[in-house]
Amino acid sequence: MEFDLIKPLLVEGAKDKIVLLVLDGLGGLPMEPGGKTELEAASTPNMDALAEKSMLGLHEGIRPGITPGSGPAHLSLFGYDPLKYVVGRGVLSALGIDFDLQKNDVAARGNFCTVDKEGFVTDRRAGRIPTEVSERLCKLLLENVNIPGVEIFLKPEKEYRFVFVMRGDDLQANIQETDPQGVGRKPETAIALDSGSEKAAKIVQEFVRQAEQILANESPANMFLLRGFAQLPNWPQFPDALDLKAIAIAMYPMYRGVAKLVGMDTPPAAQSYEEEIDMLEANWDAYDFFFVHIKKTDSYGEDGNFEKKVHEIEAVDALLPRILALDPSVLIITGDHSTPCLMKQHSWHPVPVLFYAKLCRPDGIASFGERACRQGGLGVRFPAYELMSLAMANAGRLEKFGA
Amino acid sequence: MEFDLIKPLLVEGAKDKIVLLVLDGLGGLPMEPGGKTELEAASTPNMDALAEKSMLGLHEGIRPGITPGSGPAHLSLFGYDPLKYVVGRGVLSALGIDFDLQKNDVAARGNFCTVDKEGFVTDRRAGRIPTEVSERLCKLLLENVNIPGVEIFLKPEKEYRFVFVMRGDDLQANIQETDPQGVGRKPETAIALDSGSEKAAKIVQEFVRQAEQILANESPANMFLLRGFAQLPNWPQFPDALDLKAIAIAMYPMYRGVAKLVGMDTPPAAQSYEEEIDMLEANWDAYDFFFVHIKKTDSYGEDGNFEKKVHEIEAVDALLPRILALDPSVLIITGDHSTPCLMKQHSWHPVPVLFYAKLCRPDGIASFGERACRQGGLGVRFPAYELMSLAMANAGRLEKFGA
Repeated sequence: MEFDLIKPLLVEGAKDKIVLLVLDGLGGLPMEPGGKTELEAASTPNMDALAEKSMLGLHEGIRPGITPGSGPAHLSLFGYDPLKYVVGRGVLSALGIDFDLQKNDVAARGNFCTVDKEGFVTDRRAGRIPTEVSERLCKLLLENVNIPGVEIFLKPEKEYRFVFVMRGDDLQANIQETDPQGVGRKPETAIALDSGSEKAAKIVQEFVRQAEQILANESPANMFLLRGFAQLPNWPQFPDALDLKAIAIAMYPMYRGVAKLVGMDTPPAAQSYEEEIDMLEANWDAYDFFFVHIKKTDSYGEDGNFEKKVHEIEAVDALLPRILALDPSVLIITGDHSTPCLMKQHSWHPVPVLFYAKLCRPDGIASFGERACRQGGLGVRFPAYELMSLAMANAGRLEKFGA
Repeated sequence: MEFDLIKPLLVEGAKDKIVLLVLDGLGGLPMEPGGKTELEAASTPNMDALAEKSMLGLHEGIRPGITPGSGPAHLSLFGYDPLKYVVGRGVLSALGIDFDLQKNDVAARGNFCTVDKEGFVTDRRAGRIPTEVSERLCKLLLENVNIPGVEIFLKPEKEYRFVFVMRGDDLQANIQETDPQGVGRKPETAIALDSGSEKAAKIVQEFVRQAEQILANESPANMFLLRGFAQLPNWPQFPDALDLKAIAIAMYPMYRGVAKLVGMDTPPAAQSYEEEIDMLEANWDAYDFFFVHIKKTDSYGEDGNFEKKVHEIEAVDALLPRILALDPSVLIITGDHSTPCLMKQHSWHPVPVLFYAKLCRPDGIASFGERACRQGGLGVRFPAYELMSLAMANAGRLEKFGA
């Protein structure tokens, strides 16, 4: 979507609602030659019936062959070309643990690591220490570090990973990463890469100096490396740019975080799919746009559990009548990326899309799956970040271009 | 089409002719679920037979979800990316009424409006006065306005709309619009937005000042608002860039105007489809490229008259043998955008294309309609502005890229 091109019609009291239902990691692969993908193997009578009245296709999140991370994959679905709207790893990490990042905070991703007596890195992941150790070390550091004039936050992520945030005046994030990207080297110095970032860089250097002493007697995690210094970006905000009141309904912080990044409302996490649909119903009149996120399709993809991924898709299909009963003008069912059980990880394969809209030109294909989507009117490489302008058009919310 | 990329072969006395047959607003939608579109419902034996030897596809005029106006839609078919080649509303309005706009003229779109005694706008369209009233007011203004050193033209469009043109030395068009875009506000002042436009802006201000007095006793149209100040753009010209002698055959001024904008020859308007084909035949030896425009498919689309739109498509189909008898090397049959009868307006839906060429790789699909085109070799989202380079190639008129 090109925000300059998007001119939302001012629609007073518009009743046209858009629902974006994302089954994380939906796209898949057959487990053996000639077999079915997860979506094809699932029994989805409700999606199949809706498909007949919809347009199908396969979307591409970034570019051919590029496997999207969760952040860029969702930004793309929200209409942000992920090559143009790049968000630093530090910010994504903070969003991923539900940290309430403020406008001028500087965030970075930290890895606990092991260094030898001369300070050379011997293990960049400190033997993959468990999360609890990471938690204790974060606490230890915070209790003993003393840097006046700035507030420092350290929050454990999974295993050896943590989030580093500093809050204060005049902080900017153009700072050299300390991760030397290999063992047998010393950590880099966090020097400022522009003059505006000098204050923040000095704070990081002082933090590292004190931390060396605080962690000196720990083992195996006696140091850390910092990557991806970043601040919240200054982007067009989804609700303003599209004139849509927008809400994110999700069970995990990462997805609520990315939605928050573009300005959507993010109520507390739901605890189940049913509760997500409850929230959709409860908020129906108050919003124009609903991002509903389903996590477990991706988790079972990463586990390589074909049967359970199929089962999750079927569970969502069973809830579809409740969404349709709300009578959305536009309903998009898709994934953010593929997570084939065969690969046990995110992949680059284009992702099935079902685009239902009252004014769409239906393909008449009564099946939702990778092969069926290849025949659909959206084509086989529909840019994910153009789905929102198509949704806006189909909701009667876009002005004509030119006279 | 990227003009830098296009290197026309010098073909002495080339006999390879290209015909672009545009059925305005061709693309459609079924009137009820599972039904046929206008093109699918039409009996088109000649187009169906030609389709079998052709490539089919669906083209996209601008970007997904973006509904093209007539100007950008045609520019796109002529090879001009409408996001790169943007033409001001004033110029489009002038072209739309067949006004002979000159190189340095400044044109704007005018709306007669109603203001109260303090000058606040109370109706931006002056109660949609009929065209005859607008015509009388344009005349009244021209007879009474006196601004030395510049020639002013006022030409009625439809209802309350008119075209304002000024002709003189050193005029530029970067001028603030006077339309305040809402009632209860005073018109804006037409200030210059760069130093080169100061002379022209002063003339507009003086014209507005005199007009206030001339129109003071009129009702309801006692003032006007001016939008889209613009001059003819300085673009690569179609005949030069492609080394094609090009002619536009059309019944309505807007389409001859857009063709003229890119340098095509524009003989007087034809009065019927038959006469358009007469003109095609009469000019066959003298030109290389023929843009033939069919208007009424769009008009009936805007009326929501499915049966008549179908009938117009059938009428064009009946004339196809006369075009084929001329033995064109390339014949493209398409629309500039969709105008589904269901919606009674231009829409964003991709537009069916039949691309016949002696050297094309035929799809072998003996049917011309939206569903058939979805299966075709051009794909479902062929950029409209790339059709011309494909046509050039198929006419043996393009050089190889690189050695």
